[in-house]
Amino acid sequence: MTVKSDIEIAREAKSKPISEVAAKLGIPADAIIPYGTTKAKLSFDFINALNTRPNGKLILVTAISPTPAGEGKTTTTVGLTDGLNRIGQKAMCALREPSLGPSFGMKGGAAGGGYAQVVPMEDINLHFTGDFHAITSAHNLLSALIDNHIYWGNKLGIDSRRVEWRRVLDMNDRALRSILNSLGGVSNGYPRQDGFDITVASEVMAILCLASDLKDLQNRLGNIIVAYTRDKAPIRARDLNADGAMTVLLKDALMPNMVQTLENNPAFLHGGPFANIAHGCNSVLATKSALKVADYVVTEAGFGADLGAEKFFDIKCRKAGLSPDACVIVATVRALKMHGGVAKDDLKTENADAVAKGCANLKRHIENVGKFGVPAVVAINRFITDTDAEIQEVMKAAEEMGTRAFLCTHWADGGKGTEALAAHVVEVANSGKAAFKPLYPDSMPLRDKVRTIATEIYRAADISCDGTIEKRFKELEEMGFGHLPVCMAKTQYSFSTDPTKRGAPEGHIVPIRELRLSAGAEFVVVITGEIMTMPGLPRVPAADTIRLNEEGQIEGLF
Amino acid sequence: MTVKSDIEIAREAKSKPISEVAAKLGIPADAIIPYGTTKAKLSFDFINALNTRPNGKLILVTAISPTPAGEGKTTTTVGLTDGLNRIGQKAMCALREPSLGPSFGMKGGAAGGGYAQVVPMEDINLHFTGDFHAITSAHNLLSALIDNHIYWGNKLGIDSRRVEWRRVLDMNDRALRSILNSLGGVSNGYPRQDGFDITVASEVMAILCLASDLKDLQNRLGNIIVAYTRDKAPIRARDLNADGAMTVLLKDALMPNMVQTLENNPAFLHGGPFANIAHGCNSVLATKSALKVADYVVTEAGFGADLGAEKFFDIKCRKAGLSPDACVIVATVRALKMHGGVAKDDLKTENADAVAKGCANLKRHIENVGKFGVPAVVAINRFITDTDAEIQEVMKAAEEMGTRAFLCTHWADGGKGTEALAAHVVEVANSGKAAFKPLYPDSMPLRDKVRTIATEIYRAADISCDGTIEKRFKELEEMGFGHLPVCMAKTQYSFSTDPTKRGAPEGHIVPIRELRLSAGAEFVVVITGEIMTMPGLPRVPAADTIRLNEEGQIEGLF
Repeated sequence: MTVKSDIEIAREAKSKPISEVAAKLGIPADAIIPYGTTKAKLSFDFINALNTRPNGKLILVTAISPTPAGEGKTTTTVGLTDGLNRIGQKAMCALREPSLGPSFGMKGGAAGGGYAQVVPMEDINLHFTGDFHAITSAHNLLSALIDNHIYWGNKLGIDSRRVEWRRVLDMNDRALRSILNSLGGVSNGYPRQDGFDITVASEVMAILCLASDLKDLQNRLGNIIVAYTRDKAPIRARDLNADGAMTVLLKDALMPNMVQTLENNPAFLHGGPFANIAHGCNSVLATKSALKVADYVVTEAGFGADLGAEKFFDIKCRKAGLSPDACVIVATVRALKMHGGVAKDDLKTENADAVAKGCANLKRHIENVGKFGVPAVVAINRFITDTDAEIQEVMKAAEEMGTRAFLCTHWADGGKGTEALAAHVVEVANSGKAAFKPLYPDSMPLRDKVRTIATEIYRAADISCDGTIEKRFKELEEMGFGHLPVCMAKTQYSFSTDPTKRGAPEGHIVPIRELRLSAGAEFVVVITGEIMTMPGLPRVPAADTIRLNEEGQIEGLF
Repeated sequence: MTVKSDIEIAREAKSKPISEVAAKLGIPADAIIPYGTTKAKLSFDFINALNTRPNGKLILVTAISPTPAGEGKTTTTVGLTDGLNRIGQKAMCALREPSLGPSFGMKGGAAGGGYAQVVPMEDINLHFTGDFHAITSAHNLLSALIDNHIYWGNKLGIDSRRVEWRRVLDMNDRALRSILNSLGGVSNGYPRQDGFDITVASEVMAILCLASDLKDLQNRLGNIIVAYTRDKAPIRARDLNADGAMTVLLKDALMPNMVQTLENNPAFLHGGPFANIAHGCNSVLATKSALKVADYVVTEAGFGADLGAEKFFDIKCRKAGLSPDACVIVATVRALKMHGGVAKDDLKTENADAVAKGCANLKRHIENVGKFGVPAVVAINRFITDTDAEIQEVMKAAEEMGTRAFLCTHWADGGKGTEALAAHVVEVANSGKAAFKPLYPDSMPLRDKVRTIATEIYRAADISCDGTIEKRFKELEEMGFGHLPVCMAKTQYSFSTDPTKRGAPEGHIVPIRELRLSAGAEFVVVITGEIMTMPGLPRVPAADTIRLNEEGQIEGLF
């Protein structure tokens, strides 16, 4: 049997005009702005008129700690959306937009897989509706305005050693990580150290995803701290009059994008911030709009539940006033085997004991989600090599935690493969069991917030901070940022800060290496390890083989 | 009387759905890909099916040598298009897309003015349909692949001192003109000198505008010479396998964009290469498609006729097999006065003598256009301060050169203000007088091509080249590039290389400073002065006041 590739399946998709897909949700044709026939943006006029409607149910899809075996979180989000529609519910999903740059490094798109995908896949993985390009422009306009201000006399007294705002490109380009700019003489400015991050790492991306409307967007952009003076007074984007022009550049990008699943169900794809130095969720505007037009909204968060779900709850839901009704934790037998100590090359051999052992990871995530008052359900994303005995171990683990696991075959079967899960999710979401609460109150000091996450979620014994970090915590409190949530940048592969510690390690120490203030996005980034904000290309990049074939179709991208 | 601003007029425009505008030309709804309701791209399927149709008439709009007083070339192109439609012709225009970056430096859009504009003006001056972002991505992917190749072992033996391919951003950012990249240690690569140009200066832009189809686009991209080895062998984009992926990034950008004039007549806006280091015309695909769907196509070229028209004829028309039927030279009384020696502050005072004297500039351009076998007509773009005596001088000058000048009031009156010009243009275009021929044959040696342009068009006594330049001419001939046209980068303000020499200077020497090979665009750039490929922002940039107002409209951009 030949298994079809994602792109082959996507090309066979019978997409409907996006206006028809929107009509399913009662969205009229004049409420959407078409980008081609299968992509559209939702107009602000329509969004603004939604306020008085009741909200649908919000379902978060998260996962066990990621392993190289793969979990299929996006695939499950799409599959569950199709399953919900199949059992007669008005459901849609709200996902992140993928980044362009990485597509030219490693092969593989980010729009689901198998028969659980959103389309048009090629567009989604390339320029899509231009949101990320708009973010690149807005970010780099601010960068240019900083150096321009210094060039023309530096009235604000920016300390050029303390410019914290770098530049961005949506490209994997290691040569730009660290640069010296403004070389070449008097007319090019004052040389200083600088560098580029990839666009998705921009604070502008995080802001776009947290903004409630254009006004809030502009206010947050204005709040960005770009540099400090010699006596360490913050310089904000507003001080450079950059917030208005940046908002103008982002006005279309702030409108949620609508596409469809392979089964012609509606999907919003909007925003895609990093899941380490940012909160890793699609936009608040997309999620909120989805809740107004659909009865069930399935959304996802980055990485495993220790990072993605925690940030979804503690940052996005807290700030946007969202209240999730259920949480689906995606697991695969293969990944659980790896958490149980099996090497990647041995995954094909049946090993129910390893699965049982690896379920320690799953169980802790289930328990953690419970700490936010959200009922968890487990989705087993089936692989061909999974055996019944292995699957039973996952079912058992879920039951031991007071919940249920469902075998899902959406990758092979589309929405048909998640019907049982969908039915149960509907039941849970309507059970009244959910009583969402963030893990810590706004009023808790920043250092305690970090410690709470470390001990409650990561099950660490404690955090460790050197003098500089302790001082920085105090500084941030004194500057008036003590009420912000914290955004943890930790390895996604382990509950600890050691990526090789799979399963459910405990009692470890979480060393805090650095604190970064995102004053516009309104969180404090807490860095516990090496964070790469500008990826490089591999020795043989995907770009090598990406091309148009004789039929004008894209080869090599997926 | 209050004069309305361009943006006020544009906002009052009653735009029609772009599908209706397309239908005027017999373009069916399924041949256009909508970007919102008033912008669209023309599909390749439709374009490819046009081949067998006859061509309409091609009319070039060019101008006298630019002065700070302004000429209004785009405004006249749009006005003439509306005028042609008003007198019952099926006419459209083909224009360049404006660059995003400069909008945040100086106030002022680039979509015509007054009652002769194309709309939606805001979109056109911001992200539009994303073409320039796609060019930025494609260009920078190639940049990243160069440094990535060196990083992973440099199998091709690229001499990092001889990397000629820089990076680009669509932003005025002087701090990026000259940088050191790949700093920060082993994992970031090998430090080398680098820099950014503005996107419109990218060779990818020139290539996009000259490519006949996707295949030709990929071939030209592959031909780009990005660097040389230590023994000076060229490294092409193809050697880095970059051409396929770059083509994929540009596949949508290659489709012409359709918008409309204020009078709801169709306009293509597509591509916008620099007019100094590139050829400064909209895309070949847009012009060719326009000729298939309209009976009259009005297009424009950058700067004055000595640069823009010469390149339009010798590069674009030669390479694309276009044969223009008429040429409109735009002049204003104010600008001619400046050519006649009047200072900018004194332009409001009537001075028919100065106009007469300044007409030497106009006359030479008329004569020059004739050298290409294309009949010229003069459009006087009327300003309120122009007096009858002054206008008469221009009329007289045109008659002395065997042609006619028409007073045009399209800025104030729209198409109604160009009816007389339009009628005459129709007559000339159908007169059979045009017998287009480029100024020099392909077979002429490069150095002679440059000398021919300098003496025939600029009326220089000669060119001067030092030993390095003479050697470079020989090298380029030996490398097999002798058959390419040359692309002159000279000040637009004078026939000479001294921008202060207005009017019609002659007998000067044109010093050749540098030769740059654009092997993908297929021309040799000949630099005769300082060329700025990355603008900076002024002391008080437009970005300072650009913002959304309470109605969500953009303020400060125009």
